Amino acid sequence: MKSYRKELWFNVPGRRAFVNITPQVETCLRESGIREGLALVNAMHITASVFINDDEDGLHRDYDEWLEGLAPHEPVSKYRHNRTGEDNADAHMKRQVMGREVVVAVTAGRFDFGPWEQIFYGEFDGGRGKRVLVKIIGE
Amino acid sequence: MKSYRKELWFNVPGRRAFVNITPQVETCLRESGIREGLALVNAMHITASVFINDDEDGLHRDYDEWLEGLAPHEPVSKYRHNRTGEDNADAHMKRQVMGREVVVAVTAGRFDFGPWEQIFYGEFDGGRGKRVLVKIIGE
Amino acid sequence: MKSYRKELWFNVPGRRAFVNITPQVETCLRESGIREGLALVNAMHITASVFINDDEDGLHRDYDEWLEGLAPHEPVSKYRHNRTGEDNADAHMKRQVMGREVVVAVTAGRFDFGPWEQIFYGEFDGGRGKRVLVKIIGE
Repeated sequence: MKSYRKELWFNVPGRRAFVNITPQVETCLRESGIREGLALVNAMHITASVFINDDEDGLHRDYDEWLEGLAPHEPVSKYRHNRTGEDNADAHMKRQVMGREVVVAVTAGRFDFGPWEQIFYGEFDGGRGKRVLVKIIGE
Repeated sequence: MKSYRKELWFNVPGRRAFVNITPQVETCLRESGIREGLALVNAMHITASVFINDDEDGLHRDYDEWLEGLAPHEPVSKYRHNRTGEDNADAHMKRQVMGREVVVAVTAGRFDFGPWEQIFYGEFDGGRGKRVLVKIIGE
Repeated sequence: MKSYRKELWFNVPGRRAFVNITPQVETCLRESGIREGLALVNAMHITASVFINDDEDGLHRDYDEWLEGLAPHEPVSKYRHNRTGEDNADAHMKRQVMGREVVVAVTAGRFDFGPWEQIFYGEFDGGRGKRVLVKIIGE
């Protein structure tokens, strides 16, 4: 069994954004030399997500508005977590809806994607460097 | 390490439905000959889910109503994504709540399920053939 | 390839709670002797979650309130599932938001966590013994 590990760094300037990280993760797969196996891609931070969906700007703006409706950023004082001095309680919720991780099949040296599947980093509390872990195991 | 891959096809006539796919996925496991490992089961389409929960009709109708409350299909014009000519923006949201994939342990040649765990395909934008990927690695 | 399996039991006295299970899962990893691979940690019951987030009490109370807003326990009669004699339909929904499972990378014999990542058992229908499955594969 082979195993491969890499950290990818992201620094999103605003509070929230979705970044297509498929090219970087595909580079990892090539570096790994693994042809059959499973790839785990996870946010290492608890106010960010890794998820698979469509690379369509309108959808991303819909997601942002929808998540803000489900877990509004303001008033920040309504969240107990923010009494610790943080203002990111909403980001911890948005991340649960969108998920921490994806597991992707590796088949014949490529990600075994459906027609529109792309991997995104979802940032809900940006403005600083944060990491995504890529771990691939197989042969 | 052994690895196994299969696509399962589903064509749900209406817009939304939940389909118990446990028997098909168990057939995959038998075909694989794998006795210890991990199975990934994921929707290959971004308006569908694979999830594990209870095979109870009332619950599925509750899920449907609940998801429709969280991300209503109509008015379709309220979603930017639908300006691309689609009417399925809500389906991209419902799928995030229910999830893209499950990873199931394989122990002694069987899925290592709890007492009520069953695998479902969740369709949120039906009416055409769509696929689920089953990838199993192990020994 | 090595593989390891263990069930962890939890009995939460009230209806809902979040329990930090990181120490028990780390004990599993040590017992497994696996140094490179993937660990699956999943709720075996369909009204409970396993998720990764922050070990902060205020946040957990925010989560509880937020989930109760998204899928209220009462009135129990509003859910079809509860006509089966259950009163836990809401728990099936809360569990979908928080997720069934996490997959964690194992690197150099340790969980490859970001700075604040901790593994939690999320109980949404407590008062009886329920299980979490830990399955680790690798070398």
